[in-house]
Amino acid sequence: MEFTAEQIATYLSGTVEGNTNTIVTNIARIEEGSTGMLSFLSNPKYTPYIYETKSSIVIVNNDFVAEKPITATLVRVEDAYASFAKLLTLYQQYLQNSKEGVSEYVVIGKGSTYGAHFFAGEFVSIGENVKIGENVKIYPQVYIGDNCQIGDNTVVYAGVKLYSDTQIGKSVIIHSGAVIGADGFGFAPNSENEYHKVPQIGNVILEDYVEIGANATVDRATIGSTIVRRGVKLDNMVHVAHNVEIGENTVIAAQTGISGSTKIGRNCMFGGQVGIAGHLHIADNVKLGAQTGVGVNLRKEGEIYLGSPSKPLKDYKRWLIETHRIEQLTKRIAELEKFLKEKDKK
Amino acid sequence: MEFTAEQIATYLSGTVEGNTNTIVTNIARIEEGSTGMLSFLSNPKYTPYIYETKSSIVIVNNDFVAEKPITATLVRVEDAYASFAKLLTLYQQYLQNSKEGVSEYVVIGKGSTYGAHFFAGEFVSIGENVKIGENVKIYPQVYIGDNCQIGDNTVVYAGVKLYSDTQIGKSVIIHSGAVIGADGFGFAPNSENEYHKVPQIGNVILEDYVEIGANATVDRATIGSTIVRRGVKLDNMVHVAHNVEIGENTVIAAQTGISGSTKIGRNCMFGGQVGIAGHLHIADNVKLGAQTGVGVNLRKEGEIYLGSPSKPLKDYKRWLIETHRIEQLTKRIAELEKFLKEKDKK
Amino acid sequence: MEFTAEQIATYLSGTVEGNTNTIVTNIARIEEGSTGMLSFLSNPKYTPYIYETKSSIVIVNNDFVAEKPITATLVRVEDAYASFAKLLTLYQQYLQNSKEGVSEYVVIGKGSTYGAHFFAGEFVSIGENVKIGENVKIYPQVYIGDNCQIGDNTVVYAGVKLYSDTQIGKSVIIHSGAVIGADGFGFAPNSENEYHKVPQIGNVILEDYVEIGANATVDRATIGSTIVRRGVKLDNMVHVAHNVEIGENTVIAAQTGISGSTKIGRNCMFGGQVGIAGHLHIADNVKLGAQTGVGVNLRKEGEIYLGSPSKPLKDYKRWLIETHRIEQLTKRIAELEKFLKEKDKK
Repeated sequence: MEFTAEQIATYLSGTVEGNTNTIVTNIARIEEGSTGMLSFLSNPKYTPYIYETKSSIVIVNNDFVAEKPITATLVRVEDAYASFAKLLTLYQQYLQNSKEGVSEYVVIGKGSTYGAHFFAGEFVSIGENVKIGENVKIYPQVYIGDNCQIGDNTVVYAGVKLYSDTQIGKSVIIHSGAVIGADGFGFAPNSENEYHKVPQIGNVILEDYVEIGANATVDRATIGSTIVRRGVKLDNMVHVAHNVEIGENTVIAAQTGISGSTKIGRNCMFGGQVGIAGHLHIADNVKLGAQTGVGVNLRKEGEIYLGSPSKPLKDYKRWLIETHRIEQLTKRIAELEKFLKEKDKK
Repeated sequence: MEFTAEQIATYLSGTVEGNTNTIVTNIARIEEGSTGMLSFLSNPKYTPYIYETKSSIVIVNNDFVAEKPITATLVRVEDAYASFAKLLTLYQQYLQNSKEGVSEYVVIGKGSTYGAHFFAGEFVSIGENVKIGENVKIYPQVYIGDNCQIGDNTVVYAGVKLYSDTQIGKSVIIHSGAVIGADGFGFAPNSENEYHKVPQIGNVILEDYVEIGANATVDRATIGSTIVRRGVKLDNMVHVAHNVEIGENTVIAAQTGISGSTKIGRNCMFGGQVGIAGHLHIADNVKLGAQTGVGVNLRKEGEIYLGSPSKPLKDYKRWLIETHRIEQLTKRIAELEKFLKEKDKK
Repeated sequence: MEFTAEQIATYLSGTVEGNTNTIVTNIARIEEGSTGMLSFLSNPKYTPYIYETKSSIVIVNNDFVAEKPITATLVRVEDAYASFAKLLTLYQQYLQNSKEGVSEYVVIGKGSTYGAHFFAGEFVSIGENVKIGENVKIYPQVYIGDNCQIGDNTVVYAGVKLYSDTQIGKSVIIHSGAVIGADGFGFAPNSENEYHKVPQIGNVILEDYVEIGANATVDRATIGSTIVRRGVKLDNMVHVAHNVEIGENTVIAAQTGISGSTKIGRNCMFGGQVGIAGHLHIADNVKLGAQTGVGVNLRKEGEIYLGSPSKPLKDYKRWLIETHRIEQLTKRIAELEKFLKEKDKK
């Protein structure tokens, strides 16, 4: 990628101050810039850096007034922060869309189809009767089992494994190492304490705009579907067990685990390393702090919980303070005992 | 897969009520059924659904009496639940055994052999001197290092990595993303606080009937073997460190980690996100609740533990209750102090 | 690999006692030895095993005095433990360096280069403009995105995924299933509670002598770099979020998660399943016990912390003891109350 100051200014409806032909090839923070880099200045705290930065172009607000000479070419815009975010998004889209075509050594099973602008990297294995929409990007070494469906504009990064029958919506992003549709963890013991596998013949549905982090796992349902609703974002190594359902726009941080058949509401936010037991209901807008352990239904919408076992935030804080007060209580009791003992003697 | 009501009734020693030629191609819960689906009714709680279901065939108990018209074809059997489970298992076996042959782009190293009904998906890499039994199914993009052994009827799903020298028994199932035999985490510091790698030259043994979840890891031993005994079931993202041994038929839920050289008994059950320190012994039949943290030997067979640090269930429950009693105790002490102070004044 | 007792003695500057032509092909603990195995005896606790071992060769200290007949051939050296460690390292290096050349079905993009003694296993996908040093070993099914750099003597095991722009130093080891450079978890909500992706256009830098465990993840920075400094060792399933920096020679056990933008000092040691919140500073030489949850800056060098929320070791231990004292305190208060009540009556 290579852009001139003029091209950037035109795209952002801004004006160039300096050499309109200055070229940038990448993006850096203003304090870490080097030749060929594009930076921005919005927060006044960072103003001193603009006089020292080695970045070739800096995007600044229209009302920025330089107090010393600046070597970088400036692009002046209405809102430097918003303009920079716009460029970042453009850059990410550019990177994503630059891949197209079916690479060497790709195997596509019979009855499978794909739409326009398809990219399949090397060593991709696509099973039978797979339906892939338009502008889908499948990176190298991905496995897509039989009967899967993938909607338009979805990106599947290198090495993702989709078991058979997985249904993926539009504009979904799945990161490397994620496994979607492996068997749920279901076993029935016999009289000798040996466990027999309960067949897991359901599937996984990821709706539109879902993003799945690296090495996360979403297991297929025993019967029916494990469902991750529209707009849900799962961080790395999140584990979603069989028959779980996660409501729209819920966001879950890394290494959290959700046990089988639990239903989670919309717009929830869970911190990292949270654990939730099976067959529970979590209401809409619930927030769980990192490392929270949930063993009961949480039915109050919008409540915040912490601790293991989980408590509402207020109770948790009080509990924490109380448990640190014991030493002091012990002293007070000892004093009372001493006082009464001495009094008794008299 | 396509079956008629008659074929199903014959297989289950049941009788058809309705059109014997009704065809089903998949399985669904009675409340979620649609045309072409097979469902069952066993729990009376679900009886109302049989009058509404769109499933084409429903398996019911012989003694089921319809109180309204039913559109689905019925298959009557002695025990609807057991019959359905039997069909599920058949279906899973059918899916599993339908794959056979060596796909395109498979590389098999010299000295390696495999038995009858072998399946190897695309882009499978098999090293040298690998011995693979009969009816083994290796899905795409699996890596099998030199000198590995794999017993009869074992299934290895897409993208599993088996480091060299791994020994896998019969009827084992390993899910996508699992890594078996990576180096144990062993380092020795020098005088400059740099860590030098302790070579990990042992291996991993998974005995018969083991199932390993997606993205789980079992590390090779420093010397000797890390051993997962017959019938053990590990859920997704379980971590088993070097030189660990897990006893027969122990079941471990997702995201649990077991540190180096720890020995775990038979028939144990561990919840999710449990952590166990290194060089410990856990007795047979021990149960650990989710998020339990174990730092000491647990030598009492059949005991249940919870909490971090772990406590026996009874102690844990009491501890929890006690820590919630502090606020009340503080009030009682304050009252005593006030009482005595006032008394003292008189 | 096959060595005679004489070859081993020569390499270790030791002397053979027994048949100088005794052959070994592998290494075992003295208590688990069998024909063809090499073992060592250093710890006197294991002396009884030398009279029973089936290992063909045993390395012993020069001052070892046999009290009974021994069937194994002995190799006497100055320090049996150090000699054995030296052999293990040699063996590991031998295994590692025995792979060389570009295997079948490897795709290398334009502008990419590699040095002498390069090994690339089957189905390796290397993007454009990738720079690979000398003696680098890339196992099967690895993905290396565009513009990555890999230093001399680095080993990348089967199935590792390196997103574009990742920079890896010399003598680094990355285990199977690790994902380096996936997008950081960054989203901005809009007024409808939908989350829009914040582009992640930075990269990951792993410096020299880093080792990354199986299925670990290190996310790319939003802008700039996520940096893992020289000599850091990460165990399996460790999660490192965007813009984190981990100081030299810090060692982190399995399933630990570090949230975005946190800076960790040098020579720290973290146990397993530790969680650290975002935007924090952890001082040099800090130790965190397993399952510790850190939500605040830890600025005191060399301090040990435990618990969730984390406390200094001394405080944690006292807190634990105090919380177990409540039952006893309750009894003492009840006695005081009873005593005063009875006294009052009089």
